[in-house]
Amino acid sequence: MKVSELGEFGLIKLLADIVDKTKNPQDASWQRLLIGIGDDTAAWKGDDNIQLTTTDSLVQDTHFDLNIITWEELGWKAIAVNLSDISAMGGIPEYALISLALPGELATDCVSNLYKGMAKIASRFGVAIIGGNIASASKTMISVTVLGNLESDSMLTRSAAAPGDQVAVTGCLGLSAAGLKMLEQKLSFDAETTQLLREAHLTPMPRIDEGQILLHRGVKAAIDISDGLLADLTHICQASKVSARIRQNELPIHPVLKKNFKSDCLQLASSGGEDYELLFTAGSQIINRLKKTMPCPVTVIGEITEGKPGQVTLIDADGKTIPWQKAGWEHFKSQK
Amino acid sequence: MKVSELGEFGLIKLLADIVDKTKNPQDASWQRLLIGIGDDTAAWKGDDNIQLTTTDSLVQDTHFDLNIITWEELGWKAIAVNLSDISAMGGIPEYALISLALPGELATDCVSNLYKGMAKIASRFGVAIIGGNIASASKTMISVTVLGNLESDSMLTRSAAAPGDQVAVTGCLGLSAAGLKMLEQKLSFDAETTQLLREAHLTPMPRIDEGQILLHRGVKAAIDISDGLLADLTHICQASKVSARIRQNELPIHPVLKKNFKSDCLQLASSGGEDYELLFTAGSQIINRLKKTMPCPVTVIGEITEGKPGQVTLIDADGKTIPWQKAGWEHFKSQK
Repeated sequence: MKVSELGEFGLIKLLADIVDKTKNPQDASWQRLLIGIGDDTAAWKGDDNIQLTTTDSLVQDTHFDLNIITWEELGWKAIAVNLSDISAMGGIPEYALISLALPGELATDCVSNLYKGMAKIASRFGVAIIGGNIASASKTMISVTVLGNLESDSMLTRSAAAPGDQVAVTGCLGLSAAGLKMLEQKLSFDAETTQLLREAHLTPMPRIDEGQILLHRGVKAAIDISDGLLADLTHICQASKVSARIRQNELPIHPVLKKNFKSDCLQLASSGGEDYELLFTAGSQIINRLKKTMPCPVTVIGEITEGKPGQVTLIDADGKTIPWQKAGWEHFKSQK
Repeated sequence: MKVSELGEFGLIKLLADIVDKTKNPQDASWQRLLIGIGDDTAAWKGDDNIQLTTTDSLVQDTHFDLNIITWEELGWKAIAVNLSDISAMGGIPEYALISLALPGELATDCVSNLYKGMAKIASRFGVAIIGGNIASASKTMISVTVLGNLESDSMLTRSAAAPGDQVAVTGCLGLSAAGLKMLEQKLSFDAETTQLLREAHLTPMPRIDEGQILLHRGVKAAIDISDGLLADLTHICQASKVSARIRQNELPIHPVLKKNFKSDCLQLASSGGEDYELLFTAGSQIINRLKKTMPCPVTVIGEITEGKPGQVTLIDADGKTIPWQKAGWEHFKSQK
């Protein structure tokens, strides 16, 4: 079977099984491990707190197009997507390592600008870039590993959603996917709209403070939205062995999206992906308190229910089910 | 200027300067940092000990040829080169993250075998594989990040060599480069020799225990040999602002190499690279004691001297200087 037939998540499961079979419970590393393969970050018990680490890559022509993104934006984004994984656990990011593969004929200015973008977001979030690796390759690939910790003895995970929880989301949905559409299809808007959509897609702002607030205010289950709202909620429901129901007319959609992407704003918001907002579940009391204390909008969009593990139902204003397909960013299957 | 003109080490310096300019001494991450860009691993103060992390990549057709290496060997090697960096600090490896870029048409068996090789060496050294990332790309690239710690409040670094130190090395030199030559040129040897050379190049054994012994016995300066003995000693001499003199006729060369690679065994041993032996410097008393306690051969091959920072002189049996060129694995310049 080919990797493209098995798909990204099938492959991850296959590899996790291989690792699992060879694990040795006698080893201190395994004993201290809290979360291995399958959540936003790995987590283990440090001496005084919980340690987190995550890795994510951007591959030229798979994840980015150099006709669309500048090198500085690319540097920002490569770090941002990793910080977002740390935020999804409620963590504080601390250190980053950068592994670059680059063509030898690339101008050094491109690499400098890439690093300026990385340094900008790292410095914004108190993250130190402390090492890396550079190799020669025919196309550019950027792998970033971020380490962090938790000021708590618990963390946000994908597996803690419970029936009766409300499902909520930070900020707005769909702006990033609309930005990608604008850039790819060369759509024209006024300057402000163009900038809003461009930044949403190319220089997303990870919800670091917000993740920590969720954790400290009693939320247990969260994920960051990278694959798309419905796909990422499916990840939570699979890991938590629950179902979820989402009300399409309650999705937080930015006025700019409603105005300029009238026909597909609902699709962009529910399945567009790369929002890097936090999707979380908790009891209504916790969420009502969060609405008052979070520095960003918090919108309840549905609830967790008992039912088939991993099933996410989308309903319209009349309570009718709207069919949806798992699109998201399953890398091998969705590749152009 | 192109990346290929500036070269790997020039580029690393350029990027380290960008990072350095944006560092914020107020951030806890920077305050705790002991070693950033420029040594085998980064290091920072944890709550009770020193934490280490390193990243290294293997890129198809730059670092490996799938006509030569099996997927299982590739998995082993991708982890081994990172463990070797941890050993060069005297550290204990704990956790690994794997970032894979793969073509969709690849058979899943290849990826399973890759992970079996990774799991084998990870389990051999008590390392837990705890996460990663999979992306689609036209060629295979494997980026590994390994985290570890130090059972000590000091560590081995590149910058601690002092005039008067002896220069010593673990094990034998040149077997890996001879193995590469055998595999590339399809040279024929008896089964035992073939296996020795193949394993030296494709499944190197990192010197984890040995690195810890060096540290606990008072050694201060070390590096693992990846670029080649003379190139890596140059890294030590640059970081320590000293010179070194190496006696060619004292290099530890395996009898198999002397027998089968008569004309170029000295070249392979001094510049071949990918030995993943430990190269270190210390006073003669420390080294004499190490010779008795180390589980592998320890050979004194020269000494650290005052002089031009980074200058490494190779001398023959008569004390005459032998010119040598920095070949090593400077990725952009040495690429075929």
